[in-house]
Amino acid sequence: MKTVNIILMGFGNVGQAFLRVAQEKNEFCRIRYGLDIKFYSIFEIGGAIHSSQALNTSEVIEKYSSLTMFRKNPLWKPDLKLTSVLDSIKPGVLVECTPSNIKSGEPGLRHIRHALDRGWHVVTASKGPLVIDFRGLHEKAENKHVALKFSGATAAALPALDIALYSLAGAEISRIEGILNGTTNYILTRMKEGVDYKEALKEAQSKGIAETDPSLDVSGLDTASKILIISNALQKTDFTLDDMTVEGIDAIPPYLLNQGRKKDRALKLLGILFKRAEELRLEVRLTVIDSSHPLFGVDGTNKGIVFTTDTMDSITVTGGKSDPKGAGASLLKDIINIYRKE
Amino acid sequence: MKTVNIILMGFGNVGQAFLRVAQEKNEFCRIRYGLDIKFYSIFEIGGAIHSSQALNTSEVIEKYSSLTMFRKNPLWKPDLKLTSVLDSIKPGVLVECTPSNIKSGEPGLRHIRHALDRGWHVVTASKGPLVIDFRGLHEKAENKHVALKFSGATAAALPALDIALYSLAGAEISRIEGILNGTTNYILTRMKEGVDYKEALKEAQSKGIAETDPSLDVSGLDTASKILIISNALQKTDFTLDDMTVEGIDAIPPYLLNQGRKKDRALKLLGILFKRAEELRLEVRLTVIDSSHPLFGVDGTNKGIVFTTDTMDSITVTGGKSDPKGAGASLLKDIINIYRKE
Repeated sequence: MKTVNIILMGFGNVGQAFLRVAQEKNEFCRIRYGLDIKFYSIFEIGGAIHSSQALNTSEVIEKYSSLTMFRKNPLWKPDLKLTSVLDSIKPGVLVECTPSNIKSGEPGLRHIRHALDRGWHVVTASKGPLVIDFRGLHEKAENKHVALKFSGATAAALPALDIALYSLAGAEISRIEGILNGTTNYILTRMKEGVDYKEALKEAQSKGIAETDPSLDVSGLDTASKILIISNALQKTDFTLDDMTVEGIDAIPPYLLNQGRKKDRALKLLGILFKRAEELRLEVRLTVIDSSHPLFGVDGTNKGIVFTTDTMDSITVTGGKSDPKGAGASLLKDIINIYRKE
Repeated sequence: MKTVNIILMGFGNVGQAFLRVAQEKNEFCRIRYGLDIKFYSIFEIGGAIHSSQALNTSEVIEKYSSLTMFRKNPLWKPDLKLTSVLDSIKPGVLVECTPSNIKSGEPGLRHIRHALDRGWHVVTASKGPLVIDFRGLHEKAENKHVALKFSGATAAALPALDIALYSLAGAEISRIEGILNGTTNYILTRMKEGVDYKEALKEAQSKGIAETDPSLDVSGLDTASKILIISNALQKTDFTLDDMTVEGIDAIPPYLLNQGRKKDRALKLLGILFKRAEELRLEVRLTVIDSSHPLFGVDGTNKGIVFTTDTMDSITVTGGKSDPKGAGASLLKDIINIYRKE
């Protein structure tokens, strides 16, 4: 049995979902993978719940999951510093789930750097740090011989990154097309059914699919961040968001909307990596696809991605829970894959 | 740069395709993965081409790829024993590509045991050894701390096994449905279009899709072997072919054929893993699916697989080259994944 020490950064939707999944799967991880997963700290703004004896996670879930209650936990330590915890425990995995800021990368970027510097593995659901400094973080991890994994930051439970990096190892990937954002795909699906944009957005918000401030999703920037991270990881590129043409769904030209409403056609927001004149390019583009396209049936909050390769033909993967639970499960997956014997 | 020593067993379609892919990708593997792949021996019936200085693989491909010429290679050593080669080189990877016998597992079973016993990793495209003694080989590999990988034995370039073992780590998989055999799927697709069984089979043979003796494919036993290997690897079951109900496509009941010919319906040969009364069961079943099924559009020689999970929802992967080149590429993938740093 191998013990895996965890520090969790951020106790919002994804952080909480991760704690729940890890708790529910504790026994399964012991039996199937020989891993004993222990939480030592859960950081939130202003401090952390921390114990040097490992936390009773089921108690945290049952009694202290609301943020008001969270800070009333007897183990709440205001002003506790991440660095002091990192230095006081045998290195394990820092799980980064703080809100993602794609302009600054903070606060996740700082957390991840601290952890890697001290020989901790990092598993992150935050896109921001990877959008801002993928290369730097990757090199830091390499130099320290630790893992930096980020399934949860690309398409949660959809194994986009696993396929790119693992299943297609050795193949050259010439093109990627992905429906990588469930919110925009839901809105586009409803618009095909005749609902107008504002109505569809309101509906998505009332169902908890879209956030109160949906701008990151509907502007295409969330999709852009994901295809950018996939490209920088897979193709060793060094793209920033400024290198990309990014379309959103908030102002769709009427002719595209009409084309997408035809039978056997659909309008999709695709994150695309492609080659032009031997140079790799990235963009997010509103695209009308027909029924022969492998992503044609990917509707509602579903996601999907197609890889075109030289030796393995084209591979398409679709599905995967597009919610905090799926993201939590993908964080757990990354942890298992760091430690397991093959 | 890490050197990877290879012994290749079998120089038929898959063995040759693997040598070609490895040769074409030699430089890519050096640059992208820091791996220098070197071939020392290629075994065929009666002996091997072998050199203690590593083989000139491009010369073997250009001049000695036909089996008649193969044995005229100046490095051909009749009666060379695998065990003596295994003992004379620093351990690397034994790549097993001999014809698969699902009754005895031989000759692959013997090759794999020899290699694992001597601390060599094994990558295999042969189903036979895994069908006959999955548990024994798996334990041997574990005890010797080496890898046993077999993407090429389950669905070639379709990453069925990667997703099961790697991308869904931590999730519990309650059901798997796969179209795992390109030949039968091609014949069923043509039969839906109105062609009768004998005609469709003949067509598949003339196109090189079906073999001269197609019995393993059309009886469902190839599909059965693949779902059995996936189950034994993923669910730690210990199934044999005798535990399974296996249908083929060589005597399809007319009512199924008629149902499958309806619009928005298709008749597919599915390898299925499912639970009944808390017990895992395996079968190969002719199944009429409708257009909402994620494998509905998987036609011709294409393959696909759907995993139903508890935490990650349902994941479907389709595509992947269904030919020797795809199988060769999947062997190379397994090798890269054994050696690469994450």
